[in-house]
Amino acid sequence: MSRRYPKPLARLIEELVRLPGIGPKTAQRLAFFLISQPPAEVESLAAAIVEAKRRIHYCSQCFHLTEEDPCAICSDPKRNHRFICVVEEPRDVIAMERTKSFDGVYHVLHGAISPLDGIGPNQLKVKELVARVTPEVEEVVLATDPNVEGEATAMYLARVLKPLGVKVTRMAHGMPVGSDLEYVDEVTLTKALEGRREL
Amino acid sequence: MSRRYPKPLARLIEELVRLPGIGPKTAQRLAFFLISQPPAEVESLAAAIVEAKRRIHYCSQCFHLTEEDPCAICSDPKRNHRFICVVEEPRDVIAMERTKSFDGVYHVLHGAISPLDGIGPNQLKVKELVARVTPEVEEVVLATDPNVEGEATAMYLARVLKPLGVKVTRMAHGMPVGSDLEYVDEVTLTKALEGRREL
Repeated sequence: MSRRYPKPLARLIEELVRLPGIGPKTAQRLAFFLISQPPAEVESLAAAIVEAKRRIHYCSQCFHLTEEDPCAICSDPKRNHRFICVVEEPRDVIAMERTKSFDGVYHVLHGAISPLDGIGPNQLKVKELVARVTPEVEEVVLATDPNVEGEATAMYLARVLKPLGVKVTRMAHGMPVGSDLEYVDEVTLTKALEGRREL
Repeated sequence: MSRRYPKPLARLIEELVRLPGIGPKTAQRLAFFLISQPPAEVESLAAAIVEAKRRIHYCSQCFHLTEEDPCAICSDPKRNHRFICVVEEPRDVIAMERTKSFDGVYHVLHGAISPLDGIGPNQLKVKELVARVTPEVEEVVLATDPNVEGEATAMYLARVLKPLGVKVTRMAHGMPVGSDLEYVDEVTLTKALEGRREL
């Protein structure tokens, strides 16, 4: 006698459960919320989903997300196209741009090398990066995440890129600004000591 | 020089942030995920959202979610229509149905009395419940949540319904099945003791 949700609701919950980090309880809560909203708001969300998927693509040069190809950064003549910053994800581009201290261009790998997850260089935009590193490029700064996968990816890229005669650098490790020395982990402290600079 | 996300992506993130329990980071993660999915899957999600909103309504009798009006439970002649179970939310109907031990009908209040949140009886389906309690109805079991708001709502409903001459009952409080006595909180233990039954 157990009755389930009416079909359109069950289907919505099923669709929501497939989103990353959304479990059955959250999916149910979201579905109930959506049903309780005015039709215009619900349709606005659905339209935003379809529109974003339809209009957003990867830049054919740097693989950042963009509406136009090449993206606004790659097509900006004021950026230094001989200085490439390699990041793992599009959100890293946004984070770097927020600093307003980088005027070069980017290359988004769309992941990091992680043998356990079956992700090697071929699953990433590595050969596209190699193709971009022409003799005009002066420096490639590797800004992959400061974790195991990010370090492995940086090591791998350094090995591949250096023979091309380009300067390959890595973002500095050190103490986060505004942190407390006693709360910084040992590995970071060691890196901060190794990377100390004369004042 | 800080660049933000391309417009359709920014709009999608904004829409997602308005969902309950979805913060900016989660919205961003969901948006990136959606953009990385095949177009068919993304459109399927969007369609499910619109469809659910368009086709799911509240049952005009019990206010449960339904495609047809009245809902499958209210229109089932095999259910005992003289026995009404009052719950706070549609998901409570699903939980009760899962037990397969209730053959009456439901009444969904769509909330509980909570003066701090400005929710009184007028914001709930209370007068609709009162209208349903005709002389034919034999019993109303109050299955609101066993918390402060649910108890207050049950107390209020008992006071309103009893003068109508109907039997008003409340779900038993007690130790959850499968729990450990030493981990059950004192209030529940007290309720379990008060509600003890002869074997």
